[in-house]
Amino acid sequence: MGTGYLDQLKQEAFEVNMGIVRERLVVLTWGNASSFDRTKGIFAIKPSGVSYSLLKWQDMVLVDLDGNVIDSKLRPSSDTLTHLEIYKGFSSVGGIVHTHSPWATIWAQACKSIPILGTTHSDHFNGDVPCIPYLVKDKVENAYEKETGIQIVKFFEEKKLKPIHMPGCLLSGHASFTWSETSSQAFENAIALESCASMAYHSISLNSKIKFPKYILDKHFSRKHGVNSYYGQK
Amino acid sequence: MGTGYLDQLKQEAFEVNMGIVRERLVVLTWGNASSFDRTKGIFAIKPSGVSYSLLKWQDMVLVDLDGNVIDSKLRPSSDTLTHLEIYKGFSSVGGIVHTHSPWATIWAQACKSIPILGTTHSDHFNGDVPCIPYLVKDKVENAYEKETGIQIVKFFEEKKLKPIHMPGCLLSGHASFTWSETSSQAFENAIALESCASMAYHSISLNSKIKFPKYILDKHFSRKHGVNSYYGQK
Amino acid sequence: MGTGYLDQLKQEAFEVNMGIVRERLVVLTWGNASSFDRTKGIFAIKPSGVSYSLLKWQDMVLVDLDGNVIDSKLRPSSDTLTHLEIYKGFSSVGGIVHTHSPWATIWAQACKSIPILGTTHSDHFNGDVPCIPYLVKDKVENAYEKETGIQIVKFFEEKKLKPIHMPGCLLSGHASFTWSETSSQAFENAIALESCASMAYHSISLNSKIKFPKYILDKHFSRKHGVNSYYGQK
Amino acid sequence: MGTGYLDQLKQEAFEVNMGIVRERLVVLTWGNASSFDRTKGIFAIKPSGVSYSLLKWQDMVLVDLDGNVIDSKLRPSSDTLTHLEIYKGFSSVGGIVHTHSPWATIWAQACKSIPILGTTHSDHFNGDVPCIPYLVKDKVENAYEKETGIQIVKFFEEKKLKPIHMPGCLLSGHASFTWSETSSQAFENAIALESCASMAYHSISLNSKIKFPKYILDKHFSRKHGVNSYYGQK
Repeated sequence: MGTGYLDQLKQEAFEVNMGIVRERLVVLTWGNASSFDRTKGIFAIKPSGVSYSLLKWQDMVLVDLDGNVIDSKLRPSSDTLTHLEIYKGFSSVGGIVHTHSPWATIWAQACKSIPILGTTHSDHFNGDVPCIPYLVKDKVENAYEKETGIQIVKFFEEKKLKPIHMPGCLLSGHASFTWSETSSQAFENAIALESCASMAYHSISLNSKIKFPKYILDKHFSRKHGVNSYYGQK
Repeated sequence: MGTGYLDQLKQEAFEVNMGIVRERLVVLTWGNASSFDRTKGIFAIKPSGVSYSLLKWQDMVLVDLDGNVIDSKLRPSSDTLTHLEIYKGFSSVGGIVHTHSPWATIWAQACKSIPILGTTHSDHFNGDVPCIPYLVKDKVENAYEKETGIQIVKFFEEKKLKPIHMPGCLLSGHASFTWSETSSQAFENAIALESCASMAYHSISLNSKIKFPKYILDKHFSRKHGVNSYYGQK
Repeated sequence: MGTGYLDQLKQEAFEVNMGIVRERLVVLTWGNASSFDRTKGIFAIKPSGVSYSLLKWQDMVLVDLDGNVIDSKLRPSSDTLTHLEIYKGFSSVGGIVHTHSPWATIWAQACKSIPILGTTHSDHFNGDVPCIPYLVKDKVENAYEKETGIQIVKFFEEKKLKPIHMPGCLLSGHASFTWSETSSQAFENAIALESCASMAYHSISLNSKIKFPKYILDKHFSRKHGVNSYYGQK
Repeated sequence: MGTGYLDQLKQEAFEVNMGIVRERLVVLTWGNASSFDRTKGIFAIKPSGVSYSLLKWQDMVLVDLDGNVIDSKLRPSSDTLTHLEIYKGFSSVGGIVHTHSPWATIWAQACKSIPILGTTHSDHFNGDVPCIPYLVKDKVENAYEKETGIQIVKFFEEKKLKPIHMPGCLLSGHASFTWSETSSQAFENAIALESCASMAYHSISLNSKIKFPKYILDKHFSRKHGVNSYYGQK
């Protein structure tokens, strides 16, 4: 294993890219993850269209915030510019996971936000996970992946959503993105999103009028997040 | 492996904590199990927020019925006080399993009890598995986990449910608890609950007017439980 | 491994009992299988309530058609008398599988037959898989398992169903039985039943008015069964 | 492993036949795959009704476009003539996969095309995946498998669908076929079809009025296909 700093970044991104396959969030090559070093302004991301069964950590592609590939013969993921815009727009984000995980994608295709219905959801996402509208035609045709990232950032700004309190979103007709301070936390959020998406689908079919109390949402989110958190070992 | 009595208690709790992950009742760290020694008044429970992949039996935290941690540097599960109140309130219970297993949680989020629709269910639960209402606001804010346990005990008393005949419940907007005389039986009840929750969801969508006869319920429950039971090797 | 004739019967039954767990048709101990030697009038069946993880082929219990246990310290499955009545009533049957496999049980709990909607189903079952009504109260209370077997046989006689053309059924509020000339074929039918039960559930929710043509049903059933069959290597 | 040309064709077909089982697209023996060498006019296909657990690459059966078996003691798949007609009718196809994968079959049994609802689908299939009507009675009775292949080809001609842009279809009351230039790509299309079938089922139940924009469909299909594609490493 490499020991240099950028090798570590590649290894970190590699671990998460393999994790999303192992956890069945990714079928075929429908997903990618990246790890960002904000001090250096460089992120490591999966190469485009390479089969997960052949992937090595050395294959991760380093990209700077201008979109330049650093020292790699492989092309980065076709979704690279979306990752880049999220890193530029969300200053606290250090890792991003994009997957077509089935249940999150089911909501995305339905163009619906995932409603918050219980404490599993509120431990990770402080409210409904928003579904962002279809991009308009000329943005799709001219700079699809870049515009997708820009649209995510703009949506969060307009809705006054904090990226760390709402560490993910759906894209209409497409799939999901999750993020966090590190890529391994972004990976946990991707797992949580998929579980919550599945449970929400079925819970609303049992009861279309669920009103999950705000005070339980707040309690659970604050058990795990913020200065008064008391979950875990610290 | 340790040989002392409390080590055995830790090992017992550890086995069940690992079992609920292996059986896919737990995703990430969404669950915990405990084993209780009623003669000593001490239970062993999972430490809070520790990844299952790193867990060792020695990490189980011993807690007495006043909530004191005995000889451990780790903090016990954030749900410890719920376990504690159940042990205090249900005198026949020796093991408790808490999971966010998907199908049980789907019913809990829908704030609905799981109806008894067949013999799989009646072999384990002598009637509908009740869903307990949301806790009121000031109980959530002041002593959430303790109040959750108190509410479960009070609900069973008010409804005249025997904890050994109805060894589990749902909590609205949250997830499930199961219990039994031992933690390994509580684990079996957690598996049964998840299967029955899934099957009930789908059966009522095929036929919303199922009336499972009381005499078959009684027959199946008594095949496995009580003085005239004839299932198994004793 | 034993070499005597009855040891072979036990081994055959053991293989199928392990198979239904491996294929996830059985959770916990919710299922059992038996192999019948019609010339000797003896069948081998799983012992009652023994965990599958501990089961050995030597544990299979031999039972004759009068219900006598032959040379075993273990009690046979609590469902033994149901198997026995099916062997007595269906003269071509040499193996029986009983499982609470989820999708078949979902239909059984809904008290509905599984409609034939496609060729996967018609390759194995020559029509809707019938759901037999709840047993009446005094039969449940007096000789539940024996009456269950008698009811299956009587139902097939009344409906003029041939057990080899319709090698299985559901029991209302309970679960499924499949059978065939051998226990390994009965196992295949249990796998097919579970797949068809799941697919039928979802297909009718997409289209409640499916009319699968009788001539395709007949074609597919006759590709695999009867004198003009041309599927497989003989 | 054999080194001759036809041995390679057998090995290629064998790999895909094992893959469709490993990916759980096939239960029991409900599926088969073939690889075609258009220059020689010969394809290799699974033998009929042989259990996947016993299958060896040497068992693959070679068949020419007149339906003659070349140098094999095993009978080819009962669906061989369907494969043959597709190879004759679609001049760009070099590999075919037939499976009763559950979600695709659910749509086929419902006699409904799988609607295009998102980018996962449009990366592989350039529009709704069509469901072809039931064959009429005398075609089923006289030359079922051959007529099935003829019907697929005719349907695509009538609807002006290009087989490489729409590399698969459903057959009413039956199951799915996918294809591509190679059998390994046909296998990927079978995996994609199953995922898209499942996601479409659930998305339309959340929102029956989804209108996936044509310009996003076109963008995604052209990212992966055609002269301006920029997905992957070439």
